[in-house]
Amino acid sequence: MAFRTMEWVTEGPVLRLLDQRVLPEVVRYRDLATAESVAGAIRDMTVRGAPAIGVSAAFGLVIAARQAGGADLRAVLPAADAVLRAARPTAVNLFWALDRMRALWEAGADAARLEAEALAMEAEDVAVNEAIAAHARAILPQEVTFFHHCNTGALAAVGVGTALGIIRRAHEAGHKVFAYLDETRPRLQGAKLSSFELMEYGVPHAVVVDGASAHIMRKRPVDIAVVGCDRVAANGDTANKIGTYNLALAAQDNGVPFYVACPTSTIDMGTPTGDGIEIEERAEEEVLVVNGASIAPNGARAFNPAFDVTPNRLIAGLITEKGIIRPPFDVNLRALFGG
Amino acid sequence: MAFRTMEWVTEGPVLRLLDQRVLPEVVRYRDLATAESVAGAIRDMTVRGAPAIGVSAAFGLVIAARQAGGADLRAVLPAADAVLRAARPTAVNLFWALDRMRALWEAGADAARLEAEALAMEAEDVAVNEAIAAHARAILPQEVTFFHHCNTGALAAVGVGTALGIIRRAHEAGHKVFAYLDETRPRLQGAKLSSFELMEYGVPHAVVVDGASAHIMRKRPVDIAVVGCDRVAANGDTANKIGTYNLALAAQDNGVPFYVACPTSTIDMGTPTGDGIEIEERAEEEVLVVNGASIAPNGARAFNPAFDVTPNRLIAGLITEKGIIRPPFDVNLRALFGG
Repeated sequence: MAFRTMEWVTEGPVLRLLDQRVLPEVVRYRDLATAESVAGAIRDMTVRGAPAIGVSAAFGLVIAARQAGGADLRAVLPAADAVLRAARPTAVNLFWALDRMRALWEAGADAARLEAEALAMEAEDVAVNEAIAAHARAILPQEVTFFHHCNTGALAAVGVGTALGIIRRAHEAGHKVFAYLDETRPRLQGAKLSSFELMEYGVPHAVVVDGASAHIMRKRPVDIAVVGCDRVAANGDTANKIGTYNLALAAQDNGVPFYVACPTSTIDMGTPTGDGIEIEERAEEEVLVVNGASIAPNGARAFNPAFDVTPNRLIAGLITEKGIIRPPFDVNLRALFGG
Repeated sequence: MAFRTMEWVTEGPVLRLLDQRVLPEVVRYRDLATAESVAGAIRDMTVRGAPAIGVSAAFGLVIAARQAGGADLRAVLPAADAVLRAARPTAVNLFWALDRMRALWEAGADAARLEAEALAMEAEDVAVNEAIAAHARAILPQEVTFFHHCNTGALAAVGVGTALGIIRRAHEAGHKVFAYLDETRPRLQGAKLSSFELMEYGVPHAVVVDGASAHIMRKRPVDIAVVGCDRVAANGDTANKIGTYNLALAAQDNGVPFYVACPTSTIDMGTPTGDGIEIEERAEEEVLVVNGASIAPNGARAFNPAFDVTPNRLIAGLITEKGIIRPPFDVNLRALFGG
């Protein structure tokens, strides 16, 4: 890509984020110099995508640590930790990254050690993305048509991304690839961001409305549906962008295998089933206003859950950096985590 | 409603259509004075909704007949019939209405007789809408939450409409009604038109993105999903606005009964199954441009099927003006049509 989703500027320190709210029309960066402003950028979706959110939060904490002067980080960081943790409720990577940082600062780590940890997380995400793409290739035919939801590419992660990374790397490895991209209302990450990325990589694709998936799978050859995830429960139930559950039903009804591309950092063994995952409800305006223009009468109301939970029975496999996890997910995830 | 979807002005003759492309922001009428311009208004979706399309086409033919002067209608009308018939391929009401007119003019009917027939169709639609709403009430609880797709109300018909007519009449009859309205991409008839109508009638509702239906049905009480239709095959397979099949899958997976509100004029006994229904594919721009603003990068491609086919196995019943038809639809539809 000709741009970077995030860049850590240690001299600041600032976290430089590509402002994804104005893509693809405008390429603009925001330099964030406080933990609070990083939390705000997560909340307002300047940065989005579970992996990118996790690493951003880690850097937000580093900023607070660097700004603490000589103060005891154990006294200073709880406030920064709390404000970052409150930014968004559903993606577990946010909590995973902050937990990993907290284990260090509670044990007395200094700002330099925390910065090194955040940089390590950033590098790990690149490696995890590549491993997911590599494991996926084992199940892809030479000529492969994908169905994809939301954006899960370089804009959602540090590396090539998860589900969209699979599509990109398959194309680069010589598979003959076509991708149907759910536009992904309300924020249109599929139309705005995934299409933007795939045009950059030269991957043939078509944007489709979210309601078209079942029809297209019935009428045209589709080999695999693949999505990212914001949190996977211990039984395999998967929280992801609203519309994922509908896509999984469309796939099931048409015999298309439905896969979740899933860094293990997204698996939450502390949540037994999807019923325990908090689903963020965002502002009505996200539905009622598109590109600044109202799409409904004045005074109309909307209901805007930002995520849904796809039941594990609809999922053919979880493509992690450690390999593809198959059903029964409860048993196989416990084994993966050594439980 | 404070406006009329269509009005026949016999002095013109002109067919006056509410321009539904600019609602809800602008209330504007178009006076159409030729069969060709009526066909154009059907094609460009000035008027939409299967029942409204059918009656509009009938009036388009009347205009051609009135303008024929002393010429033999059997020589004049085939051209008008052909241009109207070519306007849109999926909704069968268009062909149903034109077939009914053709039977008359081929038998020698004059322009006055044809005008009387179109006016009769218009009046029948009002009665059919009311009968559908009345039959539906038998299956509605006192407190009822609906899920609805597209627009199927007064804007889609001559009377109160089909599925949205059921919701409106239930509200007026004292049921405690709430309706979730799929926004219905790409043209947003749910957000723009159904919300507009339900605000006018005082029916509580919320606009939701099309991908949210399965999640909402899982998390909140929904009693019934009800949609209109563009064509029902002899086995009950139902063509309707793109996204209907996805909604039916969401309903099935969550135990919500899924009904099709269906004037018998929409049932096409000449088409054995849904596989035989032609699905219109419309311009990519309908997906890529919303309210004049692009939602995707320059050069992005889209695929835009306008309808889908919901398999009969997902449908609990067809609510017609003659009563509710239950599965097995092939047997029960044959019985209804005396076959």
